[in-house]
Formats: sequence, structure tokens, C-alpha cells
Amino acid sequence: MAQQPAKGLADVVAATTALSDIDGKAGRLSYRGYDIHQLAGAATFEETAYLLQRGAAPSQAELGVFRAELAAGRQLGSLVGADLPQIALRQEPMEALRTLVSLASADDPDKDSNEPGPNLRKAARLTAQQPLLVAAYEAARSGKDLPDADPRLGVAGNFLLQVTGYAPAERAAEILDACLVLHADHTMNASTFAARVCAATLSDMHSAIVAALGTLKGPLHGGANEQVMRMLEEIAANASGDPVDAAGTEVAARLARGQKIMGFGHRVYKVEDPRASHLRAFAAELAAVSGDDTYYQMSRRIEQTVLAEKGLYPNVDFFAATVYHYLGIPTDLFTPVFSVSRMAGWTAHVIEQHADNRLIRPDSEYIGDSALTWVPLAAP
Amino acid sequence: MAQQPAKGLADVVAATTALSDIDGKAGRLSYRGYDIHQLAGAATFEETAYLLQRGAAPSQAELGVFRAELAAGRQLGSLVGADLPQIALRQEPMEALRTLVSLASADDPDKDSNEPGPNLRKAARLTAQQPLLVAAYEAARSGKDLPDADPRLGVAGNFLLQVTGYAPAERAAEILDACLVLHADHTMNASTFAARVCAATLSDMHSAIVAALGTLKGPLHGGANEQVMRMLEEIAANASGDPVDAAGTEVAARLARGQKIMGFGHRVYKVEDPRASHLRAFAAELAAVSGDDTYYQMSRRIEQTVLAEKGLYPNVDFFAATVYHYLGIPTDLFTPVFSVSRMAGWTAHVIEQHADNRLIRPDSEYIGDSALTWVPLAAP
Repeated sequence: MAQQPAKGLADVVAATTALSDIDGKAGRLSYRGYDIHQLAGAATFEETAYLLQRGAAPSQAELGVFRAELAAGRQLGSLVGADLPQIALRQEPMEALRTLVSLASADDPDKDSNEPGPNLRKAARLTAQQPLLVAAYEAARSGKDLPDADPRLGVAGNFLLQVTGYAPAERAAEILDACLVLHADHTMNASTFAARVCAATLSDMHSAIVAALGTLKGPLHGGANEQVMRMLEEIAANASGDPVDAAGTEVAARLARGQKIMGFGHRVYKVEDPRASHLRAFAAELAAVSGDDTYYQMSRRIEQTVLAEKGLYPNVDFFAATVYHYLGIPTDLFTPVFSVSRMAGWTAHVIEQHADNRLIRPDSEYIGDSALTWVPLAAP
Repeated sequence: MAQQPAKGLADVVAATTALSDIDGKAGRLSYRGYDIHQLAGAATFEETAYLLQRGAAPSQAELGVFRAELAAGRQLGSLVGADLPQIALRQEPMEALRTLVSLASADDPDKDSNEPGPNLRKAARLTAQQPLLVAAYEAARSGKDLPDADPRLGVAGNFLLQVTGYAPAERAAEILDACLVLHADHTMNASTFAARVCAATLSDMHSAIVAALGTLKGPLHGGANEQVMRMLEEIAANASGDPVDAAGTEVAARLARGQKIMGFGHRVYKVEDPRASHLRAFAAELAAVSGDDTYYQMSRRIEQTVLAEKGLYPNVDFFAATVYHYLGIPTDLFTPVFSVSRMAGWTAHVIEQHADNRLIRPDSEYIGDSALTWVPLAAP
């Protein structure tokens, strides 16, 4: 017998996982048993991707091999290379990434196998390729040359170098690296779940990642960080006086009209999202360095207003927006940055799904008409 | 509190729908209240797509307008047109369709809206475009010209014309039309569910359809019809005597070794899949006309063997394979034909999800390590 419907599958266990765990009441998130507060600032994104995809923290030697694998995977395939120039001019960032990753399977020698070895190699390639795709997209649509990667930099530093066109400050690269760690996995979020539904038909990793990218694109999921920045920009542009005061007034007015403020609340966390505290601190630090802390102060005021009015805490998207802004990343690439990080988790979930698979095929409750009689149309 | 896990979400209600209903014990399937046995052979695929997407059977006048909308939508966009030649040479059919539909959003004037009007227009365009994409792919990889569509033919007839290169017999077009009707929707199958998970983030219809295509690709879902044909071809090629006897012997041997036979059993149906009875009859009819009924007779013997040994009935994929084979469709395009039909249902589900949305975000059960201590690596 079908169980009673839980709209949106809230609190329904859809899978077991050894990748990440959330305690929503305590505000705790861990990856493979390591609390996120231990990892942020201490583990690099490369170590985190290794941990998620391969199951344990790497030794120094293992990390060296993995870094070399990522460096080798940092290339556009021939099909992506050929089609990118026109795609960059005709598709928006997440739309283009969905297309580009779908194209990229053509150049992956392991594309037809779901076995552990090929899946691990594809996971490394997709993880290495995603920041390059974002940067190459930005260069192509801007008519700029894509800077060469710097072998001394990691994933975060090279991404900043290639997307902005200049060598990042060491601390900027460290902060982005920590952001990538903080966004790398988050249990059965919608995009990860879409990837697992796809992989569970024994479809391939690229198909699952393309499904995840299209799902992350939605404003109720990955699209939220961009929406937060648009809100800040809009309020600042329209403020007749102090933009910080305007932020509080405008957000209070929106709440009074019943509007949703992006970047607040989460289905799973009942207290502050543990990732938000790191992102708030990074935003404060970068704002101070930048010499203009307006967006940070506006964010703080909005945070206070939403907490006072609605009792909602900022989620991972809220301060990520100001952090990425201060790092010089174009606003419409904020969701792509999320995808650069989440690629580590998505690919690990596909590996986990394929390793112990059952088709994910739920039921539905029918609420339409019944027992109608079809009347064929008379010949026209 | 999270409910106990149901692996693969079997029997868990994930959504309400007014699109289709299955009674697995009685072997009944209906679309918007019309039993599939009433529709197959009486309603065209165009009427079925209209019924699913727009909520009620069309009048003659409404159907005329819809056919015109489909005819207008039967075109490759500029981006698809430019990139198709190399994609057709570098990607397999479902891989290519995933890419091509992702590219196609660039040319859709409604791509940025999830409102009912734009969604209905996109649904019609995607439904019209899918058979053309399959036929254009086949022409491009074969170095042949794509035949012009014949305005006197419907979706099924034009697909056969464009994919095989010759005008189909009237009965062949009727049979394919009925096959498209039979495959058009099927409650929360994996690809439809993936589309709804994607759409529920308020991502767009193209993203949801791309997720569905990647999910259909899997051999546990849409890929099964092709696997059935490969099995028939392999057994016939290796048979030292009568291929019909060889089919029974080989399948019995595979079952004895614990191997799964593709095209049998279904999570929801406990009796014969109501679609299978139509497909069996079509296979018999086309086999008789073809003058060589070997694959049909082999299929019957396999059906009897699996029923006797395992008590499993053929599902929609089993006889679809022989039907498509006798219709002259290349074996590796069988799953694409499934997508031509299911596009009607997928798009209708996206419309339904957007009309009454809640994020689909299930829970997971953590089964990994806990409370580990991260030890940073010493500097290399």
C-alpha cells in the first residue's frame, strides 16, 4: 500500500548515504564524519573532493597524485572547444553549463562505464573541468583570452585567476577555497537527489550531473545566491538615503507584503546553518579589505530584520553572495560557482548510487477524473 | 522525524497528479480518466499530447490549431542546426538528444518563463521538435539528407518518413501512432520524477526535460527496449538450429544462472502491463506482413519461458522492440522513440509541477563514520 503523501518528500528518507550528515536541530553538518567547522579553513577543496569521492582523507602522497589527476583533467574537450564560442553568446551561464557538460561526455574515455574505477576517473575530470568551463564561458562571452592556469595554485586560486583575469591575493584564494569546501555536499538537496534518480536507472555519470546542473539552476535552489545579490544591488540603486537603512526598511516592507526574502530559512536547519557563520565572517573580512563595506552592512541589517520579523536565519546562499561579489566574480556566475563546489558531492553521490543501486521510482496519488469515455472526433 | 527508509521510494507517494493513473493489481492505465485501451487506436498521438498537456480532449477546431502549432514547432533552432553535424558523429543517440535539447533552449522565445502560457507553448515545441531531432541525428550521422516533412502526415507518419527516408505504409504509421500513445505517460516513472524534481526548484522546462532524457537513457528505464532487441539479435546470430528454440533454451539458461531478462516485470504492475497486449498484437501483425516472423516467434517463446520460470509478464519494452524493428527503425534509436512519445507526458508533468509547486527535497539516512578528527597534512 502506498504511504500517505508527504508533499515535496519532506522528512522522507529517500536514500542512505555515507557522504554527509545534517543535524538540523543542532545546526551541524559533517562530511564523512568530519564536522564542517573542522574542515573549513583547514582542508582544501581538493582534499574535500578526495574525501567525498574516495571515502577517506588523502595522505600527502595520495593528494599529490589526485592534484596531478585534476591538473590533467583541466581541459576542454574537442567538442566543447568547438561549440563553446557560440554557446557562450547564446545561452545564460547555467543553461550553457548544462549544455557544455552534456557535450563533454563525448571526449571522456570512460563515458560508457559505471564501474568504480571509471566513475572515480570521471568524477575527477568533472571536478577539474567545471571551474574551467565557467572561466572559459566568461572569457568567450567577453571576447577575452582565457588566462593559462598557474600550476602553483589550487582549484580555487586558478578559478579566480581564470575568471577574473588577474592573479588573486593569497587570502582571496583561501577564502574561495573554504567556500568551495562549505558548499561541496549537503545530503539529499534537490540537485543531488536529481542526480541519484538519474543514476539509479544505471544511466551514466554525465547524464546525472547534467540533471543536477539543470536542477541547481532553479531559484529555489542554487539560483538563490544570485537572487540575493540582485536584491542588494536593487535596494542600493533605489535608496534615496543610506543604503543600509534602506535595506532594513525595504526588507521589512517586503515581509509585510508577504514576499519571500531569498537566502533565508532551510527545510532541514531549525537553527543557524553552520555554513552561514563562516560565510558571514568571510564577507566581513573582504568588505573591510575592499574599503567599501556597504553590501556587507546591508546584509547584516537584512539579517537582523528577517530574524526579528520572521525568526528565520540566513542560509548558505545569503552571505555567499557578498563574498563572491567582493572576490570580483560576476553576479550571474554565482550559481556556477556553487556548481564548481557541488560537483565534488554530486559525483560522489553517483558513485555511491551505482555501488548499491535500486531504481528510484516512487508512487503518485491520482487526483483527476475517472472512467471517462473517449469520443473519437468525426472526420474533419 | 524522518520516516523509515523505503529503498528506491517504492510505494512512497511523491506527488499528486491528474495526468495518469495505474492500477497495478488490475493492470489498468488511464490518462486523465481515459483507459489506455480506449485511446490506443482511437486517439492520435497529437490528441493524446493535447489531452495530457492541456487537460481535456480537443475539439476538431482545437486539434486543428494544435496541429498547426506542432507543425510550426517542427524545426531545428539555429544553435542545434549549427552543432548537430559534429554532435551526431561524436555522441550516441540518447547522449546527443540530451545535448541537443539543452542547446535548443537558446532558440526558444519562452525559455525564461514558467508561467502557464509560455509552458504550454514550450511543451508543444518540445513535442514537435523531438521526432525531428531524432530523424535529423540519424540523417547527419549517416550522411544522408533529411527528407522534408509531409504536411498530410501526423507526428508518427512524419517520423517514419524522416527517419527511414521513405513514405510509410498507412498501417505502419497507425501502429507507430498507437505506440506513441501507449508510451506517452506513466505516473512517477524515473524520468518523469527526475523532471519534477528539477522543475520543483522553479528551474525551467528545458532543464527538466534534459534531466528526464538523461534518466530515460538508463538500461533500467528507457534503455530496456534496445536491450531486448540486442538480446533477440544475439540469440538469432548464435543459434545453431531453430532460433525460436534457441530463444527458449538460452533464456531458460540465463534465468537458471540468475540473470535478469530485459523487458519483463514492473515495479507497479502485478499482472500484465496493459500496454503489452497492444504491442504484442502489433508485433504479430507487422511480422506477418514482413514475411519473416522470426523475431516475433522468438519473443513469444521467451515470453512463455519467463512466465513459466519466473511468473513475470512482459512490460511495455518487450514487444516494443520487435514492433520498432519491423517498422524499420534502427535499433539504437528505440530509446529515442520512447522519448518522442514520453515528451508529451514529461512536459505535462512540468506544467503540473509549476502550477502547484513545492521543492522536492527528501531526507537521507546517514550510515557513515561520526565524530572524526581532521588532521591537517604537514606541509609537503
